[in-house]
Amino acid sequence: MTTTETSRTFREKIQHIVLHPAFQPTIIAIIMLNGLVIVAESYQPGNDLLLLLDTIIVWIFVVELVLKITGLGVKSYFSEGWNIFDFSIVALSLIFYNTPLVSVLRLIRVLRLIRMIPAIPALRKIIDSLMRSVPALTGILGLTTLIFSIYAIIGTTFFRGVLPAEFFGSFHNSLFTLLQVVTFESWASQVARPIIAEIPWAWFYFVSFIIIGALVILNLVVAVILDYLGHDEEEVQRRHMERMYEENEALRKDVQEIKELLIAQQKEKK
Amino acid sequence: MTTTETSRTFREKIQHIVLHPAFQPTIIAIIMLNGLVIVAESYQPGNDLLLLLDTIIVWIFVVELVLKITGLGVKSYFSEGWNIFDFSIVALSLIFYNTPLVSVLRLIRVLRLIRMIPAIPALRKIIDSLMRSVPALTGILGLTTLIFSIYAIIGTTFFRGVLPAEFFGSFHNSLFTLLQVVTFESWASQVARPIIAEIPWAWFYFVSFIIIGALVILNLVVAVILDYLGHDEEEVQRRHMERMYEENEALRKDVQEIKELLIAQQKEKK
Amino acid sequence: MTTTETSRTFREKIQHIVLHPAFQPTIIAIIMLNGLVIVAESYQPGNDLLLLLDTIIVWIFVVELVLKITGLGVKSYFSEGWNIFDFSIVALSLIFYNTPLVSVLRLIRVLRLIRMIPAIPALRKIIDSLMRSVPALTGILGLTTLIFSIYAIIGTTFFRGVLPAEFFGSFHNSLFTLLQVVTFESWASQVARPIIAEIPWAWFYFVSFIIIGALVILNLVVAVILDYLGHDEEEVQRRHMERMYEENEALRKDVQEIKELLIAQQKEKK
Amino acid sequence: MTTTETSRTFREKIQHIVLHPAFQPTIIAIIMLNGLVIVAESYQPGNDLLLLLDTIIVWIFVVELVLKITGLGVKSYFSEGWNIFDFSIVALSLIFYNTPLVSVLRLIRVLRLIRMIPAIPALRKIIDSLMRSVPALTGILGLTTLIFSIYAIIGTTFFRGVLPAEFFGSFHNSLFTLLQVVTFESWASQVARPIIAEIPWAWFYFVSFIIIGALVILNLVVAVILDYLGHDEEEVQRRHMERMYEENEALRKDVQEIKELLIAQQKEKK
Repeated sequence: MTTTETSRTFREKIQHIVLHPAFQPTIIAIIMLNGLVIVAESYQPGNDLLLLLDTIIVWIFVVELVLKITGLGVKSYFSEGWNIFDFSIVALSLIFYNTPLVSVLRLIRVLRLIRMIPAIPALRKIIDSLMRSVPALTGILGLTTLIFSIYAIIGTTFFRGVLPAEFFGSFHNSLFTLLQVVTFESWASQVARPIIAEIPWAWFYFVSFIIIGALVILNLVVAVILDYLGHDEEEVQRRHMERMYEENEALRKDVQEIKELLIAQQKEKK
Repeated sequence: MTTTETSRTFREKIQHIVLHPAFQPTIIAIIMLNGLVIVAESYQPGNDLLLLLDTIIVWIFVVELVLKITGLGVKSYFSEGWNIFDFSIVALSLIFYNTPLVSVLRLIRVLRLIRMIPAIPALRKIIDSLMRSVPALTGILGLTTLIFSIYAIIGTTFFRGVLPAEFFGSFHNSLFTLLQVVTFESWASQVARPIIAEIPWAWFYFVSFIIIGALVILNLVVAVILDYLGHDEEEVQRRHMERMYEENEALRKDVQEIKELLIAQQKEKK
Repeated sequence: MTTTETSRTFREKIQHIVLHPAFQPTIIAIIMLNGLVIVAESYQPGNDLLLLLDTIIVWIFVVELVLKITGLGVKSYFSEGWNIFDFSIVALSLIFYNTPLVSVLRLIRVLRLIRMIPAIPALRKIIDSLMRSVPALTGILGLTTLIFSIYAIIGTTFFRGVLPAEFFGSFHNSLFTLLQVVTFESWASQVARPIIAEIPWAWFYFVSFIIIGALVILNLVVAVILDYLGHDEEEVQRRHMERMYEENEALRKDVQEIKELLIAQQKEKK
Repeated sequence: MTTTETSRTFREKIQHIVLHPAFQPTIIAIIMLNGLVIVAESYQPGNDLLLLLDTIIVWIFVVELVLKITGLGVKSYFSEGWNIFDFSIVALSLIFYNTPLVSVLRLIRVLRLIRMIPAIPALRKIIDSLMRSVPALTGILGLTTLIFSIYAIIGTTFFRGVLPAEFFGSFHNSLFTLLQVVTFESWASQVARPIIAEIPWAWFYFVSFIIIGALVILNLVVAVILDYLGHDEEEVQRRHMERMYEENEALRKDVQEIKELLIAQQKEKK
């Protein structure tokens, strides 16, 4: 047996493990366990058992990835976007494994839970369909950016001195305040009323922003719904229509045959 | 007459009562009266007349259930999910009938009003259709759990000391605060602004959570609407399409007959 | 000329006025003027000119109604629901014309503006379609009442002493507080957090109410949208389908004629 | 070469520039740069470099407009609504170029960013479709105005003295407060509860306004969705139906030919 053959059978064995129906559910279970460990650790920070469990889980993930890459082949593995995402998270886990910055360590640890998305098909499907609807939304997102920018600059220019600086003190603060206004959060009681008390025409600023903002958000929602509906609707219609088309074709074939029969009769007579 | 026969006629009589068109409306009226008694008792706690009425109603419910079980037969009665639900509520009412815990007693008393749902078909229909749409939502609910968990752990890790402990003091407190944020309730004024004042990058945490949260909720809403629309749409289409299919079939039958006639003519000639 | 004839020609003349294309727009203009007078009066209470204008407008309305009733006939006038509504408002205006209660007087004065709805077809159409969707919503409204009642009683029982009496002090106060919670208005900051601080399990009460409430409202919205969509959808489909049905019928007629021709041929031969 | 010919070739050259595929993207890039300059200036007010850049951009815009008007011809340029809009903004920029009022200057400067909308087709499309749905909404907007007016007058009449004047002190203040209530912003905590504490029946005013307001907004949303859906839906259907109509026509033609053949046979025999 040559080395190439050995490596092939070795690869086939690994492929057998990776594609085994129990492999993916096991990984999902470990990610869930990882979630429980992280939550538990948030109640008991620095608990040795939990940290040990977490380390073991990281190494299981590393082994899982190595198995997958060897099993599927480097090229075929990295050809799918979700795999690259998956790989980056585990790689980050390893790189920052011994960082002295506890905050970064914890952040990386939590991000590992996002692996749940590529692991569970139902979640991956939702994210995929969300991503697919993004191009349809570029126009509306551009318009939102434009409206927010214009209102933020006007707000910064005119209301700078009225409220504390965290409201309209600078362009980025104004953007945050406008997000607060567009979610209707204390827009009148905390933001609009104190400003109107000093600058009476400010009512027009807020009322117009709320109406325009609501209209734009409504359009965004409608665009997303239509995007979904379009796909779904056409599916139902296509099913029905295809049957109709088939039936029609069969009917036309019959009518064609009748016509040919009659023409044959005609010719025979002559 | 044997005992079996007696029991059968006895059962038939009860079945007659249970299936009488006035039986169910009477029960609904008694549940509504029960509701009024409970509301009245909340204004006059410990009023003897009201407590007596409540006791009478419990016993009417017990009699109703005994009648139904005898009338429909134990097996057939418990084969429907709503009946088990109904039975459990009345059973709980009896078990905690004489509990010294006033709070538990009152809770059980109120829960009896939920019997309205299986009693009124319109309500039962809504709950049934809600239940049916749950499987379509598992993906989106799983994603919501995941996003809430990740943000709750990050929040607990980084914002623990900034606000009072009931906001980000522990994992479950963070979850509650995130529910508050996702419903846009004082998310900026009470939660985000004080935190951003101390930890400037926290604006990214809140803005991203609000945008992701809104997107996920939007998807949930769209999923529910599509679920309903799908059923409804297909119904309207099916009605039209069935008529089309029938008409097409009649047409094809006619064309087939013409073809057969012509072929018969052809053969005759030869 | 007899008296009956005179009255007939008199009635015809009035009918001519009432059905004149400029009659209804004039009335709409007067209602709008009435609105301006009432708004102006809110800035200058007791202004004599405005009160005089208001009195003139009331008498114009009375004359308008008398003309309409005489023109269309009592029976035909009161056969339409909107006319009865219209009549009641003007009648109330007259009855409370000289009431010493200034508040009631002003309320009646404002209610006259609702006459705009029957006067403008676009508004009447919206209200009509809203009314038509009410029966489809009885189930969901019943369920909302049930859920609010159950939560209000539980709230009154357990949270009575925690917050000031206007929150959960009695059944009707609890209902109002639950409306506040379901609109997400300060539900956490003002209502839930102070209660949870004293009764820890209250988080379940609020979280479950918010989720159930949101689900029920979502269903209500979906029900309304479906109701509209259903009508609209079917309209578009019916138009297409009717054309298809007609075409199919023409086709079948042709095929039938061919069949008859062939059968006639067959018989002739024999 | 005559002067008319020279002017024609000159115009053609300009047309060539204006219709060049790189012309519009360059303008969009300059508008975006303009946005960045304005944002930068909000951080460093009065920075000489930024003010110079802004002046240069204004003159680029003026040159752009002159080129466009000469290239397309005055008549053809002003025949499109968006061009008039575009022209007005740049004209305003020039008119208020040297105004001593810094606020007006800054406002005009920001409004120049709205030029992004006619410049980018995706944005123009959204605004166009929003504009097109306005006529379908006149009824619902009229009803909203009516309901707000009636509630504002009632509020001003009865709650004038209860809260500070900025809530129900005058008609326009009441309108603003009702906008706050309809967006569910502190409607209970800041507005309704203090009033109900003094005027108990006010709960009916707020509860009815919230329910009616929510219903009207819901209708508005549904109207917009239906407007979009209608167009989209019909498009999908029309595509399918047209194919069906064509197929049907072909089928009928065949059947007609068969009928004619048979009738010809019939005649021949005789």
